[in-house]
Amino acid sequence: MQPSTRSTTRQWQGIIAHYGARMQIRRDVTPVTLLEGNTPLIPAPRLAEALGGGFELFLKYEGLNPTGSFKDRGMTAAITQAVAEGAQAVICASTGNTAASAAAYAARAGLKCIVLVPEGKIALGKLAGALSYGAEVLAIEGNFDDGLRLVRAASEHVPIAVVNSINPARLQGQKTAAFEICDALGEAPDWLCLPVGNAGNITAYWMGFTEYYNDGIIQRRPHLLGAQAEGAAPIVREHVVEKPETIATAIRIGNPARWQEAKQALTESKGRATAVSDEEILEWQAKIARLEGVFVEPACAAGIAAIAKGRREGWLNIEEQRVVSIMTGHGLKDPDAALKKAPQPRTIPASLDALLEALIR
Amino acid sequence: MQPSTRSTTRQWQGIIAHYGARMQIRRDVTPVTLLEGNTPLIPAPRLAEALGGGFELFLKYEGLNPTGSFKDRGMTAAITQAVAEGAQAVICASTGNTAASAAAYAARAGLKCIVLVPEGKIALGKLAGALSYGAEVLAIEGNFDDGLRLVRAASEHVPIAVVNSINPARLQGQKTAAFEICDALGEAPDWLCLPVGNAGNITAYWMGFTEYYNDGIIQRRPHLLGAQAEGAAPIVREHVVEKPETIATAIRIGNPARWQEAKQALTESKGRATAVSDEEILEWQAKIARLEGVFVEPACAAGIAAIAKGRREGWLNIEEQRVVSIMTGHGLKDPDAALKKAPQPRTIPASLDALLEALIR
Repeated sequence: MQPSTRSTTRQWQGIIAHYGARMQIRRDVTPVTLLEGNTPLIPAPRLAEALGGGFELFLKYEGLNPTGSFKDRGMTAAITQAVAEGAQAVICASTGNTAASAAAYAARAGLKCIVLVPEGKIALGKLAGALSYGAEVLAIEGNFDDGLRLVRAASEHVPIAVVNSINPARLQGQKTAAFEICDALGEAPDWLCLPVGNAGNITAYWMGFTEYYNDGIIQRRPHLLGAQAEGAAPIVREHVVEKPETIATAIRIGNPARWQEAKQALTESKGRATAVSDEEILEWQAKIARLEGVFVEPACAAGIAAIAKGRREGWLNIEEQRVVSIMTGHGLKDPDAALKKAPQPRTIPASLDALLEALIR
Repeated sequence: MQPSTRSTTRQWQGIIAHYGARMQIRRDVTPVTLLEGNTPLIPAPRLAEALGGGFELFLKYEGLNPTGSFKDRGMTAAITQAVAEGAQAVICASTGNTAASAAAYAARAGLKCIVLVPEGKIALGKLAGALSYGAEVLAIEGNFDDGLRLVRAASEHVPIAVVNSINPARLQGQKTAAFEICDALGEAPDWLCLPVGNAGNITAYWMGFTEYYNDGIIQRRPHLLGAQAEGAAPIVREHVVEKPETIATAIRIGNPARWQEAKQALTESKGRATAVSDEEILEWQAKIARLEGVFVEPACAAGIAAIAKGRREGWLNIEEQRVVSIMTGHGLKDPDAALKKAPQPRTIPASLDALLEALIR
């Protein structure tokens, strides 16, 4: 891909600079970028063993994007597009990650940003981010699905750009994660597993793999393993969930905007969607951190829990195969969820005797 | 630099794979890595304007390392070295960032990890990280300096590797950030500004710039601008601070381990150390996020506050110069500090009328 002509340094310049020729967005303005993308694909051999072994596992650590989640890929595209179209303000509904990302990129572009979040159901780190970046945060007495409905309706009454994943520029950015995985491995993996909430991300990944496949850059596309939480599993259950509930706030969505696209991607890929419990999510979140040193938000662990479930129940055959699991957000986004399962620190006096006793015990 | 021979992917493989030939550490074992380093150098033109303009500013966003702070650079080196030496357990004292990093890399290597933190004075995100990665966290009834003293003493009684920055491998890793800046810019910046706590980082940066300078890779070294908090400014005041206090917990240190090295680096670079108030720190933390979309922990803002102070007082001349400011940790490390200055979200009913009213208001 062509490097940005405005680059003042020799390093990675963000996904539009690197993959822009493959992105259907306006490219006649300077990209609004925080140098997102280029995230590490971390080998996870100890976690693979804990999942029964006999396959190769990588974690795509999207939590290392600038605002701590994969949302930055779509947002550099959506905000750049909004600037090109002359927008003065942007709006989105969010479970938290989109809010932080929209707020950050809007701040960088000097645009006003309004985000709607479900009252009392947003993780601390996500709220702190959105507020810090200067967004106007409105907590609505409803869930994500209510928020998205309101945002769509409001945009018909006031001149404001919607940057939810119903905005096509968002998927154009998000699909670049599929490109990066193929570029790093030299081929697509056999399986790609990821959490599915509003279903924009699974749609974008499939779009990315399909484009590389159609252009002959990869020789096959991966099977997709989509993970939902038991209390918020509309795609698995095949019906809307009126009151979605799960500790994995990022996928606490009952009526996904990209439901049909997700279903099609799952079918075309000969993949599968499955639901896992909050207990399994927290268990695997802890194991990912303790075995590999990778701290993720709960939703990410749903993908790994789905692998465990599929092997346990015998419907997932990944022997000798290569699996990439998407770690969509950093654990720091939701410190409270992590602390629920963690042992509390012990307090000791500041003396050598007390420390030695603690060490020997 | 030579690529890692064990690389299974074509992407960045961490700082030992990239810069190992310049690091004086044992290299006869597989590096323990989370693919740290290669962090973005983000142009910050709006922030530069808020600082009076007329110079070029970049933010080196070290908060995008795997555990959310620059500590990962030193830790990949220290834990790799510990594995080479046959250690079974590691220990450190920490204000939080080192604890999370040591815990993550120890987890990846399968080593036991014990961290000492000051009771009640550690940011939420840092504690959540360290506990999640499975470290044994001991809260001591004392401050960081007490903790470091205890760790040093304990290591003389039990077989355990100290991974604080008194461990020389740590600086070998941390100096790679200076290499990255020079590699990205093609030259050293005119000024490098950074927060100074235990003074390991300023020592490591100077080491890195000096090595590149001595090898002819850069033609000059930057001036260093070291920022301390007014309540924890031993290097500025030239005396130990018995009870250091500041909201910037990462630099809440009264008796820096690398005091002399920091002083020498400041002198040799024709630089300067200065102290800024907690109020200035919080003010600039908010501006960095609101103007550039970069969310950082409070300590990082001390460096930017120091630029503001230096220009205001007339002793800092950076006209037409290039300045790099080190953003040592992500804002998500300390969401509570960020929320202190942020406006609270407004709650509205889930109705279009209520939303439109809020938008127009």
